[in-house]
Amino acid sequence: MTGSRPRIVVVGGGFAGLNAVKALRKADVDITLVDRRNFHLFQPLTYQVATGALSPGEIAYPLRAMFKSSPNVRVLLGEVAGFDLDARHVRLTPVGDIPAPAVLPYDVLVVAAGSAYSYFGHDEWSAVAPEVKSLESALAVRARILGAFEKAEAVDDPELRQAELTFVVVGGGPTGVEMAGQIGELARDTLRPDFRVIDSRNARILLVEAGDRLLGTFPKSLSLRAATSLESLGVTPTINRTVVGIDRDGVDLRAPDGETERVSAHTVIWAAGVRASGLATALAESSGAEADRAGRLTVGPDLTVLGHPEVFAAGDMVRVRQSGGETITLPGVAPVAIQQGRHIGKTITARLAGRDTRPFHYVDKGNLATIGRARAVADLHVVRLSGFPAWITWLVVHLYYLIGFQNRLLVLLRWLFSFVSRGRGARLITGVDETSGEISSTTRS
Amino acid sequence: MTGSRPRIVVVGGGFAGLNAVKALRKADVDITLVDRRNFHLFQPLTYQVATGALSPGEIAYPLRAMFKSSPNVRVLLGEVAGFDLDARHVRLTPVGDIPAPAVLPYDVLVVAAGSAYSYFGHDEWSAVAPEVKSLESALAVRARILGAFEKAEAVDDPELRQAELTFVVVGGGPTGVEMAGQIGELARDTLRPDFRVIDSRNARILLVEAGDRLLGTFPKSLSLRAATSLESLGVTPTINRTVVGIDRDGVDLRAPDGETERVSAHTVIWAAGVRASGLATALAESSGAEADRAGRLTVGPDLTVLGHPEVFAAGDMVRVRQSGGETITLPGVAPVAIQQGRHIGKTITARLAGRDTRPFHYVDKGNLATIGRARAVADLHVVRLSGFPAWITWLVVHLYYLIGFQNRLLVLLRWLFSFVSRGRGARLITGVDETSGEISSTTRS
Repeated sequence: MTGSRPRIVVVGGGFAGLNAVKALRKADVDITLVDRRNFHLFQPLTYQVATGALSPGEIAYPLRAMFKSSPNVRVLLGEVAGFDLDARHVRLTPVGDIPAPAVLPYDVLVVAAGSAYSYFGHDEWSAVAPEVKSLESALAVRARILGAFEKAEAVDDPELRQAELTFVVVGGGPTGVEMAGQIGELARDTLRPDFRVIDSRNARILLVEAGDRLLGTFPKSLSLRAATSLESLGVTPTINRTVVGIDRDGVDLRAPDGETERVSAHTVIWAAGVRASGLATALAESSGAEADRAGRLTVGPDLTVLGHPEVFAAGDMVRVRQSGGETITLPGVAPVAIQQGRHIGKTITARLAGRDTRPFHYVDKGNLATIGRARAVADLHVVRLSGFPAWITWLVVHLYYLIGFQNRLLVLLRWLFSFVSRGRGARLITGVDETSGEISSTTRS
Repeated sequence: MTGSRPRIVVVGGGFAGLNAVKALRKADVDITLVDRRNFHLFQPLTYQVATGALSPGEIAYPLRAMFKSSPNVRVLLGEVAGFDLDARHVRLTPVGDIPAPAVLPYDVLVVAAGSAYSYFGHDEWSAVAPEVKSLESALAVRARILGAFEKAEAVDDPELRQAELTFVVVGGGPTGVEMAGQIGELARDTLRPDFRVIDSRNARILLVEAGDRLLGTFPKSLSLRAATSLESLGVTPTINRTVVGIDRDGVDLRAPDGETERVSAHTVIWAAGVRASGLATALAESSGAEADRAGRLTVGPDLTVLGHPEVFAAGDMVRVRQSGGETITLPGVAPVAIQQGRHIGKTITARLAGRDTRPFHYVDKGNLATIGRARAVADLHVVRLSGFPAWITWLVVHLYYLIGFQNRLLVLLRWLFSFVSRGRGARLITGVDETSGEISSTTRS
């Protein structure tokens, strides 16, 4: 570190942070990328790890390896505890036993800390209804789904067996649709020849959505197509139902008329609301900027924090106040984060060169959700696709954005194999603590 | 299950058990394969997971998927608690919360439960010096090795930094040699461009062997070649040294003259002695057969247990008494287990057909150990290879035996990439419990 060059600190190695760093790696600046994990996770495919289609190493890539040829980029493992915007430094705490400096001074700060699933005030549900955002939770969900089929094969009581074979996915957005579709494929195709007692096709898969259609951000015609595709995989889309209770034995669903229904199910997966990282709140409190109910920080048209032109924030932890004054919430998807990250990188470069900067504008190229083998929906604005053409589009787009040439080829191969054989190679139940024989609690099962 | 066909119970889905089942899957028998995991692990490559070269899903394959087209094969998840040889049943306990029947009756029993690393009576060392036999322990070792480089980058004190950069591998057999070589490659090539403060090439890697040479089961000339190859990767082979103490800060090594030396090292990996599964002892006690000091059960020339022609045992939990009366201990490698498993399958088929059976004879095709990129040693009896030719041999043999066409191609691709780029895709530090920020203890770190 020369000390004379501007010090840029980027918090978060997700899509936004990564693309900010990439846009700056040839600039005459010193960049420190802070993350609590040593890898970038290609989050749009985490659900494929949760269903045994992909292995963790195929959707994650070491951050240091990404910037190994950029001597002005330093990767720092640490957990951000907060900010001192006046003193211009970030406060850090260590991750595990890896030491981290207590404070990290910056000239320019970029915060892109993402979001986490929110259980709408029912944090106790997280123990019984895991989500699939981190690699660890995806592996725990994988062990749980595969374990449910194992238990169904092993129990004698027909009622217990049906409860083991009942899967409830909460949330009808893209992640919920994708999870439910993948469980449908597992039950209908992949696992069918594996068992001798049960018929895995008897699995009951409920996709519960509180609104009146799946994929609320897609055109209505595609929502209906998605529902039809899911049904053909044995999934029951259930709209207008609010989850009011979850425990080890099942879920309670409330209809609009107030009636509640009990569904016996031993596997519940959470894909409903998200809440912005606590760092968004921290920035809002220190700067006096607004935050919405989901904890998202309001940033200006150039993605800077109120009163702090040297502090940027991006990704699904922010809402953007536009030049006209209106504040918009962009969808929490990778393309938004990628474009915002790049925009921040360009803005910083332009400022250093004394050039004018421009407000951020999201170029919405469309929405994609995959449902299963050769089943997907794609809203490309100029054209709406479903079925095989949508699936091919989905495949190409995801391979294109997937980090690292090596990972791309491995994933392509896995998908080709799955397509041809209807198999899934990574169906491992791991995380069993061999000393106690218990499924480990730290894998959050 | 018809009940009229002979019931074959196979305990253990390792190389021996798997090959016994494969040899029997077309026979007119009912087979139950019992394992506490739902997958077969290609154990000879576990060390590559521990060093980030491969992902777990690439060296493990679901047992059910292997026998999906064999309706006479049933896979049962359960932990074997013991045997009642007179009543002819196996006693089971459940794995985690997956129920298992309490007893499993058999007409023919095949036990191939393998072995575990033994800490020579120092079980407390297992907490500070993990081994790389299971997938979970391999992932814990991976997190520890990569974490050590992270810590070295983060600490300021030069002595502490050198302790972080010191790796001790205990045991100079094939696993120890392979682990040490892989850490050498990580330090010398893969991680070199990743860090900004440390030079990963300064890592000190000690391979400690109690005997007077590495790879004691190989010809002496290859032991020397292996030592030279390791040295070129920055590994220091240390022979004639016994480990007498291990704690969080380092190891104590004793020389033949009784002097002990302290080595400060924060990462110690155990690849020394093994001990047969407790099920070998259980069989010895119920049958009156012998067991050696490492817990290996003595089986007859046809691999049956003394006085129980209906009970077979195989793999690295047995020694074989030959027709001549002499008892031999075969090396604990995959080819022995594979051949023994096949032999048992053929013996059972021959008995059912009323044909004569033959004693087991191991066909030793040779010994292989890889050290690093284009570095290996191979003793093929007719020819001894080292360097690139040995490495290609190693690669072809391992790909050939690797389970599943899909896994084979993925692994080949990974290796090709690593060979060309000197990179390793699966360098993820996982198992961090996000709620506490601690490296999870159940991943046995």
